[in-house]
Amino acid sequence: MKKNAFYAQSGGVTSVINATAAALILETKKHKSKIGKVFAGKNGILGALREELIDTSKESLSAIKSLKNRPGGAFGSCRVKLKSLDENKKEYQRLVEVFKAHDIGYFFYNGGNDSADTAHKVSQISKKLGYPISCIAIPKTVDNDLAITDCCPGFGSAAKYIATSTLEASLDVASMSATSTKVFILEVMGRNAGWMAASSALARSKKNDAPHIILLPEVIFNQKKFLNRVKKIVELHGYCVVVSSEGVKNNKGKFLAESESKDAFGHVQLGGVAPYLGSLISNKLKLKNHWAVSDYLQRSARHIASKTDLLHAEAVGIHAVRYAIKGMNGVMPVIIRGKSPKYSWKIKPAPLSKIANVEKKLPKSFISKNGFDVTNKCIDYLKPLIVGEAYPKYRVGVPSVIELKLIEVRKKLTPWIS
Amino acid sequence: MKKNAFYAQSGGVTSVINATAAALILETKKHKSKIGKVFAGKNGILGALREELIDTSKESLSAIKSLKNRPGGAFGSCRVKLKSLDENKKEYQRLVEVFKAHDIGYFFYNGGNDSADTAHKVSQISKKLGYPISCIAIPKTVDNDLAITDCCPGFGSAAKYIATSTLEASLDVASMSATSTKVFILEVMGRNAGWMAASSALARSKKNDAPHIILLPEVIFNQKKFLNRVKKIVELHGYCVVVSSEGVKNNKGKFLAESESKDAFGHVQLGGVAPYLGSLISNKLKLKNHWAVSDYLQRSARHIASKTDLLHAEAVGIHAVRYAIKGMNGVMPVIIRGKSPKYSWKIKPAPLSKIANVEKKLPKSFISKNGFDVTNKCIDYLKPLIVGEAYPKYRVGVPSVIELKLIEVRKKLTPWIS
Repeated sequence: MKKNAFYAQSGGVTSVINATAAALILETKKHKSKIGKVFAGKNGILGALREELIDTSKESLSAIKSLKNRPGGAFGSCRVKLKSLDENKKEYQRLVEVFKAHDIGYFFYNGGNDSADTAHKVSQISKKLGYPISCIAIPKTVDNDLAITDCCPGFGSAAKYIATSTLEASLDVASMSATSTKVFILEVMGRNAGWMAASSALARSKKNDAPHIILLPEVIFNQKKFLNRVKKIVELHGYCVVVSSEGVKNNKGKFLAESESKDAFGHVQLGGVAPYLGSLISNKLKLKNHWAVSDYLQRSARHIASKTDLLHAEAVGIHAVRYAIKGMNGVMPVIIRGKSPKYSWKIKPAPLSKIANVEKKLPKSFISKNGFDVTNKCIDYLKPLIVGEAYPKYRVGVPSVIELKLIEVRKKLTPWIS
Repeated sequence: MKKNAFYAQSGGVTSVINATAAALILETKKHKSKIGKVFAGKNGILGALREELIDTSKESLSAIKSLKNRPGGAFGSCRVKLKSLDENKKEYQRLVEVFKAHDIGYFFYNGGNDSADTAHKVSQISKKLGYPISCIAIPKTVDNDLAITDCCPGFGSAAKYIATSTLEASLDVASMSATSTKVFILEVMGRNAGWMAASSALARSKKNDAPHIILLPEVIFNQKKFLNRVKKIVELHGYCVVVSSEGVKNNKGKFLAESESKDAFGHVQLGGVAPYLGSLISNKLKLKNHWAVSDYLQRSARHIASKTDLLHAEAVGIHAVRYAIKGMNGVMPVIIRGKSPKYSWKIKPAPLSKIANVEKKLPKSFISKNGFDVTNKCIDYLKPLIVGEAYPKYRVGVPSVIELKLIEVRKKLTPWIS
């Protein structure tokens, strides 16, 4: 029986999430007897609730293919978490209403742990509300903190950006250090998991190369030890490169950036571990420093995407469709790494119940004894994920972005009031 | 008569300054009857004063060629400005002593306005101290603020980085804006000149595209007008992208970032226009925002260098050698733009007296009437400078960096005490 599909993007976007979308849409075209149109939710699950469904069949084939090179979420993402079916049945009834109205039998939700939770809840519609649906969550997060999957699409590209940026900025500061900047600090994302900060270690090609200190959210920040280490490294090498996760906390469990700094208005300044550390180093060590916060730049840097990551992103999109037409429900296509030293991977389905709301942090064996670095085991894990380049096309010096039409399906229902 | 050459890098480095070094060294090999060895100063002019001369003839040809792909200053740079010959004759006498000891007849100094000043002073050695030398300054600065030359090597690549990053981050924030971040702020370098901030305008492919507001150091910051504009743009487009120069000042002539903010220690926090603006927007407009400060990342981003910029960087290195062997002194090879609409350029010599210490800011005709944008004339100027890609080689996912031997010439003189 032929049914339409709903696809939506959720949570923080990545540089390759649209590659997943493109691969998914193209794969559905190979299964025309089972899947009709793909409706993309405008702004994630909100698109389903509000009946704002973008008809991807109105886009040209070349526009769909070009999504592969476009960072951000082409259909709009959202930070919305559905309550449980028991707590807010109305929302799920609305979903069923919209699915029925548009003959939707497949639900694809592309996101991180929160989104896996949403997808897991939606997957219960079949049993609890008696509306048959194949609900597949598709992994995506630069934080790399999803359970079961070996890695998350989006992470490899962000990691490649961080490793490359750390390498490049290190060469810069190294050349300035004789008479100017001694310490350079790069703040990276990753929330409570240190995967992104850890990936800066890939900048090294030999011992003592930058980064010299990696601050992970898994390790409680010790100001004295940190400053001693910075001082020692500057004495030894002439300069010091620090990569810090945004999520680093002090021994009271508070984020560094919100622990002491106040802004011009007397409000606690959120974000900004790097300026916090910079000011610490200026004041306590009197060392000239520079700091960078790459923020959205790191997760949208399609221009330096990892080819391996891009292949992962496409593969999970393709497998999501294959699982759906097999009638699977409440699963996620995850990446399984082969056991031989040469990197290999395949995609397998995993139950959402084991993925939703679980946060995978750096294991202890990946963190060095002194807490300021990662181990070789961690580097061996990370290395293959950033291999390969996958440049976008450029037009007059900047990456070419093809505009989508984003034509919405005519609404059939009364407006949704949440 | 065959003489050795001295080459040094000065001031803030760029992603293509080593491409100039490579081109210069390779060009000298074509003029073996006139130029012997090229000694690179370790850390700029300090290398000459301290007699720390790196013998580039000890490097393999492939190592020299690989410099083209290496950001930062391979021989070390410095932030040191020589006093005038009348004020501090001893320094110049020391230079002559070192030049004599190592048979140096050519002096190449690769830097910005301060460095052009140093080179200009050194060029007076011939007349004032009777030591014949060809002194050529070679342009380099991401700030693009050198006089006479149409643009500065290093700028085009930084501009390409900024335009690309603005484009990518804008696609990210656009997709999040329905339920999350409404304003994204990117802080860029450029000191007192707005060239780098202006280059973010190249991210646009149509009207109303991001960036929506460009804050230039040439325009006094007006908080009320700025906040009104941010508010209006968010109402209109759902989100707003701001690119701000680090050098933006208020009506008292103070840098925004140092005007009000204090850090955890009660000290004025330097740097950080972006967090300043972010906190302004949070507090006055209650709009969720994200900010990024790319700092050294933007000027070392060799992975996204502009091919046009790279060609400029090589050409000024080559022409510096040609001018030197012609016996020119106190000049700089500058880039002259052709007058036809199709971009063309050539290199010509210009006197250092007209370049040293002059800071070229954005002309009025390049700034929009409301002060929050650049004009089409500015965009037409900027566009060709970022055209073309020139990717480095990668090794296991990160740009490949070949280590130099950096072997110093045996010292012949007593140590220099400054």
